[in-house]
Amino acid sequence: MSKSKIQPRLLKGFRDYLPQAALAREQMIRTLQDVFASFAFTPIDTPALEYAEILLGKGSEETDRQLFRFEDNGGRDVALRFDLTVPLARFAAMYTNDLGSPFKRYHIAPVWRAEKPQRGRFREFIQCDFDILGAASAQSDAEIVAVIHSALEELGVAHKIRINNRKLLNGLLETLGVSGSSAAVLRAIDKLDKQGEEAVRRELSDTAGLDSDQASRLMEFLQISESSPSAAIEAASQIVGRSEIGMLGASEMKAVIDNTEAYGIPAECLEIDLRIARGLDYYTGTVFETLCSELPDIGSICSGGRYDNLVEVYSNRQLPGVGASIGLDRLMAALEELEKLSARSTPADVLITIGSEAAVAPSCALASKLRQSGLNAYLYPEVKKLANQLKFANRIEVPFAIIASDEQLSVGKCSLKDMQSGEQLDDLTFDIAAEKLLARR
Amino acid sequence: MSKSKIQPRLLKGFRDYLPQAALAREQMIRTLQDVFASFAFTPIDTPALEYAEILLGKGSEETDRQLFRFEDNGGRDVALRFDLTVPLARFAAMYTNDLGSPFKRYHIAPVWRAEKPQRGRFREFIQCDFDILGAASAQSDAEIVAVIHSALEELGVAHKIRINNRKLLNGLLETLGVSGSSAAVLRAIDKLDKQGEEAVRRELSDTAGLDSDQASRLMEFLQISESSPSAAIEAASQIVGRSEIGMLGASEMKAVIDNTEAYGIPAECLEIDLRIARGLDYYTGTVFETLCSELPDIGSICSGGRYDNLVEVYSNRQLPGVGASIGLDRLMAALEELEKLSARSTPADVLITIGSEAAVAPSCALASKLRQSGLNAYLYPEVKKLANQLKFANRIEVPFAIIASDEQLSVGKCSLKDMQSGEQLDDLTFDIAAEKLLARR
Repeated sequence: MSKSKIQPRLLKGFRDYLPQAALAREQMIRTLQDVFASFAFTPIDTPALEYAEILLGKGSEETDRQLFRFEDNGGRDVALRFDLTVPLARFAAMYTNDLGSPFKRYHIAPVWRAEKPQRGRFREFIQCDFDILGAASAQSDAEIVAVIHSALEELGVAHKIRINNRKLLNGLLETLGVSGSSAAVLRAIDKLDKQGEEAVRRELSDTAGLDSDQASRLMEFLQISESSPSAAIEAASQIVGRSEIGMLGASEMKAVIDNTEAYGIPAECLEIDLRIARGLDYYTGTVFETLCSELPDIGSICSGGRYDNLVEVYSNRQLPGVGASIGLDRLMAALEELEKLSARSTPADVLITIGSEAAVAPSCALASKLRQSGLNAYLYPEVKKLANQLKFANRIEVPFAIIASDEQLSVGKCSLKDMQSGEQLDDLTFDIAAEKLLARR
Repeated sequence: MSKSKIQPRLLKGFRDYLPQAALAREQMIRTLQDVFASFAFTPIDTPALEYAEILLGKGSEETDRQLFRFEDNGGRDVALRFDLTVPLARFAAMYTNDLGSPFKRYHIAPVWRAEKPQRGRFREFIQCDFDILGAASAQSDAEIVAVIHSALEELGVAHKIRINNRKLLNGLLETLGVSGSSAAVLRAIDKLDKQGEEAVRRELSDTAGLDSDQASRLMEFLQISESSPSAAIEAASQIVGRSEIGMLGASEMKAVIDNTEAYGIPAECLEIDLRIARGLDYYTGTVFETLCSELPDIGSICSGGRYDNLVEVYSNRQLPGVGASIGLDRLMAALEELEKLSARSTPADVLITIGSEAAVAPSCALASKLRQSGLNAYLYPEVKKLANQLKFANRIEVPFAIIASDEQLSVGKCSLKDMQSGEQLDDLTFDIAAEKLLARR
């Protein structure tokens, strides 16, 4: 390489999408768009760049550290969005009157975080959020669960949606008389999976100030694992007792489960899990996580929940909502590991080889005919040895090739070669070739 | 608004996409994806952020000024991409061996330019590029023209693709013995539309050093407006004379036109226009611009051409190609002005009203049935007065509403109301309701 060349390279933590990955991702996004549309969610979009003040809102130090933030040419303090929730809040606060209520939107777009890069985690990734704003009903919580289920079903991902309701735990803490310790309790609970019961009991006693009886009652609650949702809700209600907030949580949870049954979501796709907390502040009712049944270890592929007031940072208006976010990249990695991701790097159904300059014009006509039939036709872009063109067809894994001599083309005929079996059908009219290809698609 | 609230606002030059615009844009993008796939182009994607050095390449001062450029948390000099051509060049240089040749890709993604904001021009906008790399044939130039035509036809945009070939003008300058003045001549020609022949002649004489005969010959060439492409090419060849590069240009142009005829592109969609230059350096052969026939004044909605070496900034390898870029935002603005853009702000085919808490579960089942039939069903998310729900249906312009009493639902029946005519069909089974909706879709 001569000295004056610039070395082509990527920033650390960023990636390119080569054809196979880009094609698979495009197909996933289109499937998700179709599912969202079937539930009558509408897309929106917001700018990648916003005032840092807007994006930081009441954000944490961690958010601040992860922000790609800079001064623009006009001296403004700007940053790249790090999620799609904050832009939604800003958007909802600005267009209250235009949007009306309820408002169901989805947003599929990249976000940027200056995180420490690690395997499978990038500094730019696509988020895929969907929310119902302006409705406080359990029915809308259930609709979000139904969207998650339909989306994953359409993508061919066996899954289990784990549901909880924050009001149940709040009710238990009220019954135990330790509502004031709820943040410390939540922090302790979050460690249950990793550190085990003994460690969590110690923390509940040392930090949250629960006595042994209180801790036992909490543990009993968290470890409810009745096989049916209604039995789990019943068991939880027993432990939570007569706290008003707790009873509300139980009835919301029951309503969500009833609705998901009405939606026809199979029981094995749902689970009540009282340990799911999903952060400290934001969620106020239903919360959920979703595991990929065949790869539970990769963690939740779709999480979310209900919040009381989306726009509180920007407006005095109250705007409740419920929503979830699909981790597209994590889901794609899972599909790849399960060998369910298309390995194709071209959308072509057929490659039309070009045997001579005289073949170009009739081959253009043939390609047009195939495209009009709904086929994706790769017209080889120049005259080259046939062997090279067929080698290329194998390389890009196109399933069929069309080969035709000038004589064949002059009478509107061609041959169709199956690139896998090697089988070749000769002297087909263009229409018959299109039919054969459509039948084997 | 209380003092502690942050005022929700956008950065100057940026815009939000509300549902109507986002839905229309999503539909346009999907149409384009389908067209690109039918020609067997594959998608790729690259990061929004790159090393500034990579993006600037051999860039101009203007590019530098328009760049959103900053130092990231790791002290790297980075910037947001300002087009999709430079990232393609970097990409092609890095993955030469993985991609093979030829390589046909498209890339639909946002780019950022810190331009002075003006009506219809934003600092963030979506570009939509498609290129064929690794083939130097006129056939691939014609394929790009065919993609432009198919894309605009699918989008319902009457258009005229204006084609030129830089080699013809170069040939004429060679014949006139003024090859050295080509940059000055191109600059003068660019002013022909705005300043008229006299001003251009003066500039040709003063700046480019052409004498009156030379200028006349050039003017004669530029003003060729034969109605048929082959007559125009013939007339141009006559003026250009026996220059080798000029003859090559004429034969390339003829091959492109022959191919577009084979593709079945109507003659009224094509025009030879010898005045099209498309910048000074980059393009080396075929160049094109595309006018929207009903709104020619908005300027070119799709431009491009052939280049000799895409990767020269990053590699010693030679990589010729041809491609074009659709200005999605300009095209969307045109469709809106022509009232061809969908005005709908929801994908919903029908709104299912909710009359009582008891109606929720059977309505979820109904919604599922409609969705399984391929319909987009908006389930109203909470119990509210029917009048309010129908008002909402009108507001979001959903064409039908389903209304059902608890009694109707309990026997699997519902009523279907046409929101435009007010006509209502009663006591339909869910299946019949789905059928009626599909038939009127």
